[in-house]
Amino acid sequence: MTPDITPIRVAVLGASGYTGAELMRLLVRHPRTSIRVLTGERQAGKPVAEVFPHLMHEDLPRLCRIDEVDWSGIDLVFCALPHGTTQEVIAGLPATLKVVDLSADFRLADVETYAQWYGHAHRAPELQREAVYGLCEINRQGVRGARLVANPGCYPTAAQLPLIPLLLRDLVETDDIIIDAKSGVSGAGRDAKQANLFGEVAEGIHAYGIASHRHAPEIEQGLSLAAGRTVMVNFTPHLMPMTRGILTSIYVRMKPGVTAADLRAALAEQYAGEPFAKVLPEGVAPQTRHVRGSNLCLMNAFADRLPGRAIVLSAIDNLVKGASGQAIQNMNLLYGLDERTGLEVVPLFP
Amino acid sequence: MTPDITPIRVAVLGASGYTGAELMRLLVRHPRTSIRVLTGERQAGKPVAEVFPHLMHEDLPRLCRIDEVDWSGIDLVFCALPHGTTQEVIAGLPATLKVVDLSADFRLADVETYAQWYGHAHRAPELQREAVYGLCEINRQGVRGARLVANPGCYPTAAQLPLIPLLLRDLVETDDIIIDAKSGVSGAGRDAKQANLFGEVAEGIHAYGIASHRHAPEIEQGLSLAAGRTVMVNFTPHLMPMTRGILTSIYVRMKPGVTAADLRAALAEQYAGEPFAKVLPEGVAPQTRHVRGSNLCLMNAFADRLPGRAIVLSAIDNLVKGASGQAIQNMNLLYGLDERTGLEVVPLFP
Amino acid sequence: MTPDITPIRVAVLGASGYTGAELMRLLVRHPRTSIRVLTGERQAGKPVAEVFPHLMHEDLPRLCRIDEVDWSGIDLVFCALPHGTTQEVIAGLPATLKVVDLSADFRLADVETYAQWYGHAHRAPELQREAVYGLCEINRQGVRGARLVANPGCYPTAAQLPLIPLLLRDLVETDDIIIDAKSGVSGAGRDAKQANLFGEVAEGIHAYGIASHRHAPEIEQGLSLAAGRTVMVNFTPHLMPMTRGILTSIYVRMKPGVTAADLRAALAEQYAGEPFAKVLPEGVAPQTRHVRGSNLCLMNAFADRLPGRAIVLSAIDNLVKGASGQAIQNMNLLYGLDERTGLEVVPLFP
Amino acid sequence: MTPDITPIRVAVLGASGYTGAELMRLLVRHPRTSIRVLTGERQAGKPVAEVFPHLMHEDLPRLCRIDEVDWSGIDLVFCALPHGTTQEVIAGLPATLKVVDLSADFRLADVETYAQWYGHAHRAPELQREAVYGLCEINRQGVRGARLVANPGCYPTAAQLPLIPLLLRDLVETDDIIIDAKSGVSGAGRDAKQANLFGEVAEGIHAYGIASHRHAPEIEQGLSLAAGRTVMVNFTPHLMPMTRGILTSIYVRMKPGVTAADLRAALAEQYAGEPFAKVLPEGVAPQTRHVRGSNLCLMNAFADRLPGRAIVLSAIDNLVKGASGQAIQNMNLLYGLDERTGLEVVPLFP
Repeated sequence: MTPDITPIRVAVLGASGYTGAELMRLLVRHPRTSIRVLTGERQAGKPVAEVFPHLMHEDLPRLCRIDEVDWSGIDLVFCALPHGTTQEVIAGLPATLKVVDLSADFRLADVETYAQWYGHAHRAPELQREAVYGLCEINRQGVRGARLVANPGCYPTAAQLPLIPLLLRDLVETDDIIIDAKSGVSGAGRDAKQANLFGEVAEGIHAYGIASHRHAPEIEQGLSLAAGRTVMVNFTPHLMPMTRGILTSIYVRMKPGVTAADLRAALAEQYAGEPFAKVLPEGVAPQTRHVRGSNLCLMNAFADRLPGRAIVLSAIDNLVKGASGQAIQNMNLLYGLDERTGLEVVPLFP
Repeated sequence: MTPDITPIRVAVLGASGYTGAELMRLLVRHPRTSIRVLTGERQAGKPVAEVFPHLMHEDLPRLCRIDEVDWSGIDLVFCALPHGTTQEVIAGLPATLKVVDLSADFRLADVETYAQWYGHAHRAPELQREAVYGLCEINRQGVRGARLVANPGCYPTAAQLPLIPLLLRDLVETDDIIIDAKSGVSGAGRDAKQANLFGEVAEGIHAYGIASHRHAPEIEQGLSLAAGRTVMVNFTPHLMPMTRGILTSIYVRMKPGVTAADLRAALAEQYAGEPFAKVLPEGVAPQTRHVRGSNLCLMNAFADRLPGRAIVLSAIDNLVKGASGQAIQNMNLLYGLDERTGLEVVPLFP
Repeated sequence: MTPDITPIRVAVLGASGYTGAELMRLLVRHPRTSIRVLTGERQAGKPVAEVFPHLMHEDLPRLCRIDEVDWSGIDLVFCALPHGTTQEVIAGLPATLKVVDLSADFRLADVETYAQWYGHAHRAPELQREAVYGLCEINRQGVRGARLVANPGCYPTAAQLPLIPLLLRDLVETDDIIIDAKSGVSGAGRDAKQANLFGEVAEGIHAYGIASHRHAPEIEQGLSLAAGRTVMVNFTPHLMPMTRGILTSIYVRMKPGVTAADLRAALAEQYAGEPFAKVLPEGVAPQTRHVRGSNLCLMNAFADRLPGRAIVLSAIDNLVKGASGQAIQNMNLLYGLDERTGLEVVPLFP
Repeated sequence: MTPDITPIRVAVLGASGYTGAELMRLLVRHPRTSIRVLTGERQAGKPVAEVFPHLMHEDLPRLCRIDEVDWSGIDLVFCALPHGTTQEVIAGLPATLKVVDLSADFRLADVETYAQWYGHAHRAPELQREAVYGLCEINRQGVRGARLVANPGCYPTAAQLPLIPLLLRDLVETDDIIIDAKSGVSGAGRDAKQANLFGEVAEGIHAYGIASHRHAPEIEQGLSLAAGRTVMVNFTPHLMPMTRGILTSIYVRMKPGVTAADLRAALAEQYAGEPFAKVLPEGVAPQTRHVRGSNLCLMNAFADRLPGRAIVLSAIDNLVKGASGQAIQNMNLLYGLDERTGLEVVPLFP
């Protein structure tokens, strides 16, 4: 950062979770930001070094409580709080602050859909109207003029990026989309839960939230918008023994006459020149290990043996493109920076 | 084993691979067998302790070459050799021996389908005509009278057990079956391959053999037989960072009027009283970690949010029910023993 | 179990933890026991299938609270409760019951040492006097006549078995014993703790409890008894990303004139004929993966490059020989059964 | 990189291994280098994308054979070739090239020690005389004037950094140093070896190279130089199921009157202001997961319960500070750049 450029002064709310840590990892090397505030209600008062020793060597403020924050020195807030509590916290912030919210609280445009899936009325419907859905590659223009960005969920990012181009071009049937997703454990957060212990997760895989996962309506919202009609999907997430990564295996029926090559061409056309959304060479399958730590989304389409069907695959790092990386990409958009700023991290392999 | 009962004298061909090791693990505690011969061409002359130190404490013969074996003292051969070489080896055995073959060489009844998928004409078509497909729960009667049993593949076992009952009862459409399978690495064998190194497999997942995996025709053979018509499926396997286990997530379209509850009822009816094929309580998802080391196949069916569709899940240990355990189950059938003999291993969790 | 032999009627207190599950796994195949009672205070009322789905297929009683138990139908209690609460629970049991306690509560013969390391006075000193330390291979005779057996800790089992024979024979210096131990995560139990989440444990290793782990005095007690003098050790445990297993790497200074070959000979002599304690061939290093799921303790001794020093290695499965397996071995001793009864499980590899 | 500064034109020999990949990962973001040549004898002709898909999105030259390289456009060579072949390759390079060699070929100053441990006479003794050992924090001045830098081994880096300051200050006995090291699998390279398959490595740990590992003389060379006398050590490496990381647990006897606090103070003094060598706060244990992907070496010292003894711990990422990161740090020294250039990667956690 050259000294004469004023940095974006940033607060991270909920800095003690994995997405908070990942925001810090990336922001401390972002040339245009300065982390001024970190909050963590239960860890308030502690230095970051105690909560995340891997960040010990960075110069970061201590964690504090949200009610202690002096907002006058802040330009933008990353909100990495749990679902449900976020609406009221954001409603209580000065309206001059820009906000990128990593929770699910502002992702569903329809507050009735929200109420149906989350079991209570939306607590800030006027903010919901203001919120812009921050799937950067698709909604770049919308984000640029926003104040409050709803950062997409991890599964919805991995599912929408390869599907939206196909729906925009009317290449696949809208009533037969099956999304089989496999996620690493970090998506479940850092809270102490028996189900996420090493001994419970290692050496196994299982489906969960079958036909009931809250990311389904978020995916359907984006796909419906792209298709111009209501789209309902099968979304079946699986938990598997890795820390980072989501692979989605999407099974689609193509419109008459469409081929898998057409799907690849559509993806290539949509994402030509994109720094993070990448269509792989023909026949190459995306692997989550090849995006680890990076903001990349790899994707590809393959012909099925079943006539008229195709297989679309995508891979992201759930904590980066599926959360904190995309949040920073949204910040870059909000401030007119190159979207790549601070995000050109090469994947860590092996 | 009570002393007055003559044991089944067993040879394991290809004992230096993972399925060979698993045969040994189970057979040394099987009360009616005696392991007389172990072969391993490259390891011939070595004690088992050098090849598989975890079996060091068992009393087992040294590995030898196949051409060194005196077959006169053998009743049954487990053939755990690589695909392709098996046909000629088995063709060269005395016809008095019973054989359970764990390779793919005799699984496809149609030698033309074999030639198409394996790239060369079948080398023992007369044996192929004699071979019986050993999916025990489905083809029990056939196995009982057999001499040569083709032990099913790991993926085909996990896919057919939950699907065949549905097809037998005409509950699902036959042109829209999508099988998304996730496998541990041991299914790839013990040969030194870069792709299976710890550093390559850990912390990632990817699809492979997309629309081209050789287990697809084996699955389709069984499903077609059950449906009474030709069935073609989507079969998409994934490699994931665990050693043992296969989870299949199967997406089906039901016949008009059929519900997911009907699917569960069909599975429950089919497998009532089965010791190894188990339908879980409603709403409970199978997990591979709950079958580790055992011969169990857990399964269940769930309603999809997409109208008329359902999700069928199954879990096995690929080395046991998907290979060596089922092979022993087939041996038990061949000799009129209780199928459970030697196979009542409780899963190892955590 | 032949029908005319009355089984040992067993209760497992604290059946909802990993050592409880492991007791169930082994006891359901033990030919001389019948599980009559399972307790779990927080899970009382639930079937085992909900708490441990891998045991779903076994016929087991529901979990209940300790205060609900009718002790009249019980012969032996396995106590797998947390440290600290155990003393009072056992003190409250009918004195006619035999008890194998898997907690640390009765392992330290000296109640003052207990108070020093556990921060409170022992709550059942009279029971402590009665308790017999159940390191089977060393204290077989003592256990046979006992009513209350203190089952050794996981680290102390792995450390004492290879060291005691050397101290009994005065082969190593007693003031220079360094025990570097590496453990899988299951040793930390099944309670929800952030530090044991998959994301926290995978891809890393660290030392903990440095110079302060409570297993140190337990190890020293056994070594002191063997040496006939007070022995103090360095004991440094490490937590690593595997579920089961402990490897101890022990660094010793030999008495003048003693060689590593003498150490191996001592181990071989001590454990000749033992079914579970095994000295490996010269030059072969014990691996935890070769004991997984079994009651084995593998060990070996190697010459160091440093003159006069040697390296002694041992491997166990912490949940079996380090907990539940040894507890059953102790039960077998208490009832005059062959020690191997119910414990001849072949290690699960890979 | 500002356009008017000529970049360092770099060749990476042996780019198809893990250290080669890691050099590429770091060098593509290094602001002062330009990768001009990548060699890989068996992969010659392939694009990097095929060999390392995670680097697909970077602009890198195709792999070629060494004998195809035009050296006139190269300033510096990173040599990541296997041990043994390196000497002749480097001897054949133009003497104007700077070389950072990541193999073991030039690390041992005494060619007789080399011959003894590697089984053949050194093939380029005159180059050996020229080579400078590149343990940057210790030998910074030496490196600055060098042409050929022998980059330290992974274990030797992790062992020497915490020990050399103690020996320089005469704080520990030199005849009683025990180094118990635990390494991830990537240290064994990317060659297809059965022993490094996922199924062989997962869920287990074992010691290897006991009293015979070739890194022992390299460690002893550095320690002897620091101590001013011949130092021999116990060095016992262990292979464990993680991809990256080395933890060393070092057990030392202190000189009379010295305390663990003195050791910590010595480390803190030695490494004050160092960007990569970090002494942790009192009582905090280094964890390999907190250095993953970074060039950091974390260390600390603890009092032992054994009077007069202490425990010294260190953690590095074997592929970064233990290989490619330190190699780039050496390049920075050779060219008078800030040592941190291109190496300020924040650790990736979780």
